[in-house]
Amino acid sequence: MMERKVVSVVHGGMIITMDEEQRVFRDGGIVIEDDKIKAIGESGDILGRFSHVADHIIDLTGHILLPGFINSHVHSSQQLARGIADDVDLMTWLHHRIWPYESSMTEDDSYLSTLLCGIELIHSGVTCFAEAGGQHVSGMARAVSLLGLRACLTESTMDSGHGLPPSWTTRTTHHCIQSQKDNYHNYHNTAQGRIRIWFGIRQIMNSTNHLLIQTRDAANQLKTGIHMHVAEIPYENQLVMDAHKVDHGTVTYLAKIDFLRNNLLAAHSVWIDNNEISLLSRAGVKVSHCPAAAMRMLGFAPVREMLDAGICVSLGTDGAPSNNRMSIVDEMYLASLINKGREVYANGTTDPTALPAETILKMATVNGAKSVLWDDELGSLEVGKKADIVVVNPLSWPMAPVHDCISSIVYCMRSENVVSVMCNGLWIMKNKKIINVDEEEVILKAMQASVEILKRAGIKLPTRMNII
Amino acid sequence: MMERKVVSVVHGGMIITMDEEQRVFRDGGIVIEDDKIKAIGESGDILGRFSHVADHIIDLTGHILLPGFINSHVHSSQQLARGIADDVDLMTWLHHRIWPYESSMTEDDSYLSTLLCGIELIHSGVTCFAEAGGQHVSGMARAVSLLGLRACLTESTMDSGHGLPPSWTTRTTHHCIQSQKDNYHNYHNTAQGRIRIWFGIRQIMNSTNHLLIQTRDAANQLKTGIHMHVAEIPYENQLVMDAHKVDHGTVTYLAKIDFLRNNLLAAHSVWIDNNEISLLSRAGVKVSHCPAAAMRMLGFAPVREMLDAGICVSLGTDGAPSNNRMSIVDEMYLASLINKGREVYANGTTDPTALPAETILKMATVNGAKSVLWDDELGSLEVGKKADIVVVNPLSWPMAPVHDCISSIVYCMRSENVVSVMCNGLWIMKNKKIINVDEEEVILKAMQASVEILKRAGIKLPTRMNII
Repeated sequence: MMERKVVSVVHGGMIITMDEEQRVFRDGGIVIEDDKIKAIGESGDILGRFSHVADHIIDLTGHILLPGFINSHVHSSQQLARGIADDVDLMTWLHHRIWPYESSMTEDDSYLSTLLCGIELIHSGVTCFAEAGGQHVSGMARAVSLLGLRACLTESTMDSGHGLPPSWTTRTTHHCIQSQKDNYHNYHNTAQGRIRIWFGIRQIMNSTNHLLIQTRDAANQLKTGIHMHVAEIPYENQLVMDAHKVDHGTVTYLAKIDFLRNNLLAAHSVWIDNNEISLLSRAGVKVSHCPAAAMRMLGFAPVREMLDAGICVSLGTDGAPSNNRMSIVDEMYLASLINKGREVYANGTTDPTALPAETILKMATVNGAKSVLWDDELGSLEVGKKADIVVVNPLSWPMAPVHDCISSIVYCMRSENVVSVMCNGLWIMKNKKIINVDEEEVILKAMQASVEILKRAGIKLPTRMNII
Repeated sequence: MMERKVVSVVHGGMIITMDEEQRVFRDGGIVIEDDKIKAIGESGDILGRFSHVADHIIDLTGHILLPGFINSHVHSSQQLARGIADDVDLMTWLHHRIWPYESSMTEDDSYLSTLLCGIELIHSGVTCFAEAGGQHVSGMARAVSLLGLRACLTESTMDSGHGLPPSWTTRTTHHCIQSQKDNYHNYHNTAQGRIRIWFGIRQIMNSTNHLLIQTRDAANQLKTGIHMHVAEIPYENQLVMDAHKVDHGTVTYLAKIDFLRNNLLAAHSVWIDNNEISLLSRAGVKVSHCPAAAMRMLGFAPVREMLDAGICVSLGTDGAPSNNRMSIVDEMYLASLINKGREVYANGTTDPTALPAETILKMATVNGAKSVLWDDELGSLEVGKKADIVVVNPLSWPMAPVHDCISSIVYCMRSENVVSVMCNGLWIMKNKKIINVDEEEVILKAMQASVEILKRAGIKLPTRMNII
């Protein structure tokens, strides 16, 4: 005998569906059956048709409902390292802070770090994230599973390059590929299907040609994605030009070796020229734009040009030592500001009409879903898709008065307005309370663990000001 | 017989004093007598010396205490207009949205708008703001007085220019000056000294030469400040060059007419050249940098260059239709990001070491106090200064783990971490509850009022997406 499915009806709120017709129901209702959306429409209609079969009926009058936000570039293993590399140059950041830190993490540290990171992601309305390449995938998977989140997990993968910590220098290409295949077999499609395993390339400066080719082919064979940092700094492009005799940087070289495919998620992609934009577009490569990290460390990505060229650009927070806020809600606001301002750099004057609110909202939802190769089930509130939903309360000081609900979501909303989050049909935050873990306990454990990692890594931070 | 003074002792928290020696007490205590700081030091010492005379002893273990933040450019009269001018070009913004809106406001609207704005300012730790030039100073003063905030209030002042609403075109230079003198006589030094009245120049494109000169002399005579938007867009500079035959823009012309004085607070100052930076520096002009508004509409101000030249640069949020977040906490984060990124525009590559956290924190406190000409009493926690204090709880998901308390305050802290705020020795927010007004009531009234103003102003906003 089959178990009877659980049916919930939420009604009374404004629903921004992000479907192809861009429907917004002023007073909308959604029927959720187990993990999926069974019906969506006007509240009256939905209540009339489904009230009698509903196990739960939830009145969300005064609220705004949206598809769960998708954060397409997150270093969940770096959450414990927030604040260890502020105001330092890039090489100090990487070689003297981040790599020593990451290479000193235990499996349990990855678990705790992902728990703490996940708490912040949920508070900012994220239901799915793409890990940028972290330490212990087993630890990340435990945390994602427990929190009730959805994620594409990726191992930090490097088989060459300068400045690596001793424990990382012995990793061969074969080891890198095999480890990721093992992760795939152990964790892909686990946690009620909420976890997927991807392949990773940390960056081209730490990859042999063998690693690139074997990664491409393994991901292709397993029908999964590849997450890679691409064209982050001019130095990277210069190195690629010198080593491989191509006339521009990383993207040009990746095209030459047939690495640009539609399962590639390229993070940052700041230093690319018009020809490279065409290459990315033709290959169907997805780009994760991380406005905060880009402003702080990398530069101004040509986001408007990429969108105009038809590239799917989504939004990411990057990791806590690069940002330091891990909130996609802030990232929407920043993406708007910096890309309006960037027109000064590109064309001599700002353009306050560039990347309007609806475009930004699409980047955080629909484009996020496409970027993580999951748009058949995620990114919009539509019949048949997964019930990943954010509930926003606009009736408070950060948003009031709301004149334009779409632009208010993008430009005014703060994590303070995100009250409840559903993933896969289950509430993972309700009335600002994280459901599946004890937030305070995680914070205390994370604080202890971070001190221990710093010690093991031998990192001493300089003090600021005159501490007595 | 004199009334006995009220003495409070707060202790146990980390105190970032922002004094000249940059002292930070890891476990500090402050003694507050009426509206002033009577003593500051290590908790043990403070408790030993003052426990027996204290009326209140408050344990703030685990918290961080800072001087109240100073927001040096706020349009409090525009708070109700949040979201009415998103994603539109500058001329639409000004002539078809903001001016019609502002010119349709009643005195009560200015009161409500400032109340709502003040609530947002307090939630982000602001104890003092400089009004950029708003509608009804009496309404603003009522709101500031009630909320318990501190402010330098300024009337929006224009006596010429294109695109003005009909009700504004009849204002003569004489009327502009007289109205501000009346405000000065009615409200300067009211609300237990928390309100000061400044002179305002909306912008040079809406000022006759008479207005500039008379404003300079009136402010000089009354020993108060002038708040003016300066060098916002290239068009402004071009207009000034054409009209006045100077070789660069507004700043060059203001120098020529001896308008640059140390009581001038110049907002934005985006389009200025090196010579103009020297002119501002030599005259002791203060600059309010508003990172969000600048990115969205104006461009990249040469903040590092201004600081290097010794100019006092502080931080402002600008108004709700320009930003839309009115949080100095966010503005600190943005000031860091954009000025690290701006180095790409200025010098070809980002500089993650530019404007380090301690510089940003100084901009929001000490430099804010100098900008509002109130640094004898505000901007740092020192004996004899006013007790304007922010209490931050760092032990939650936006900030944990804290490795570097100064950079965590600047880069991680959100308004969610601001728990209590004291102004002039009295709590105006405690445990996230605004003390002197009913927040929900203000929000509801503000929402009603904003609809009415839009109607009176004849502003119809286009809808986005497909609203059903």
